[in-house]
Amino acid sequence: MSARKDAGPEKGARPGRRRGSAGTRPLILEAARELFAERGFDGTSLRAVARTAGVDPAMVHHFFAGKEALFVEAMEFPVDPARLVPQLLEGPREEIGERVVRTILGLWEDAEMRSRVLAILRSVTAGEQGAAMLREFMTAALLDPVVERLGVPPERVAMAAAQMLGMVMMRFVLEVEPVVRATEEELVELLAPTFQRYLG
Amino acid sequence: MSARKDAGPEKGARPGRRRGSAGTRPLILEAARELFAERGFDGTSLRAVARTAGVDPAMVHHFFAGKEALFVEAMEFPVDPARLVPQLLEGPREEIGERVVRTILGLWEDAEMRSRVLAILRSVTAGEQGAAMLREFMTAALLDPVVERLGVPPERVAMAAAQMLGMVMMRFVLEVEPVVRATEEELVELLAPTFQRYLG
Repeated sequence: MSARKDAGPEKGARPGRRRGSAGTRPLILEAARELFAERGFDGTSLRAVARTAGVDPAMVHHFFAGKEALFVEAMEFPVDPARLVPQLLEGPREEIGERVVRTILGLWEDAEMRSRVLAILRSVTAGEQGAAMLREFMTAALLDPVVERLGVPPERVAMAAAQMLGMVMMRFVLEVEPVVRATEEELVELLAPTFQRYLG
Repeated sequence: MSARKDAGPEKGARPGRRRGSAGTRPLILEAARELFAERGFDGTSLRAVARTAGVDPAMVHHFFAGKEALFVEAMEFPVDPARLVPQLLEGPREEIGERVVRTILGLWEDAEMRSRVLAILRSVTAGEQGAAMLREFMTAALLDPVVERLGVPPERVAMAAAQMLGMVMMRFVLEVEPVVRATEEELVELLAPTFQRYLG
């Protein structure tokens, strides 16, 4: 245990276990960033984050809905799967292909979002650690819930994710001309049947 | 013109325009690397490479079939599109989906190849320049020839490339479990219809 004991809980300069003071949230986020980077997503528990931050575990649960939500905020992850997944899955199954294309394209209109995605891709290609962290997070927060909700084999969901990842890289990172030039309607026409086949 | 004039053509320590001596080829490759990095693929001419290397333009044509071939060697590009494209396109059109999957998967069995692809992805995500160079090369050496040979709209070929790029990233870079675990036959079954629809 590394909880600090050198100050009172509420007002000291270096308080011990904090109780929801304004500084608690950033402390938790800082500890989370440190642990996710060191141990990956799977290897990090909310309890360990609390310990590293020197706060009560209940505080972590108070501020964050779960490990996924903590990861999204701590790593400034551009998409919150907890909001994305229901958006992808709600609605008629026979329209899921089109819905996936439109939802994902909608996400990229924001320039800040694009720059954060690029930062993630950079960390992924720069070394093993970034790749492991993203893989574990994507699997737990995106692939597994979609597999469970749709009852589709994981490799089909993964191929849908692969099609989307490749399209995003070609449109926003590589900026390959025919993909940049394509309108949303053209991309829906091209891609919706692919997603419908994988996920429908 | 920057051709050096301080030595005879054949034997001097710093000869001027070289005529196929053993050192000419590496000189051309070094000049090509420099220019591709500085000006991109489109912005580099074989004439400029010859000038920078201080050799006769005929020497560049003597050693390299064209700008694509020079790029493949100079940048240690893991795939030679001049060999890949015919492999993808030869054979019955109704089997192109399956052929694409098998050809591309076959490429990645080599570990050195995988590490070079990773290096390329790294340079692409690290900065604008790498992305521009890869985009220009991919367009000229891969997308354009396939579009021309198949008579298929460029955005369809690009979506096929996107599906492949995403699959490769998930299998070999991110190492997402269901994609790593999938056998070649399973990937053919999943992906061949996608490629058949884009390219068939």
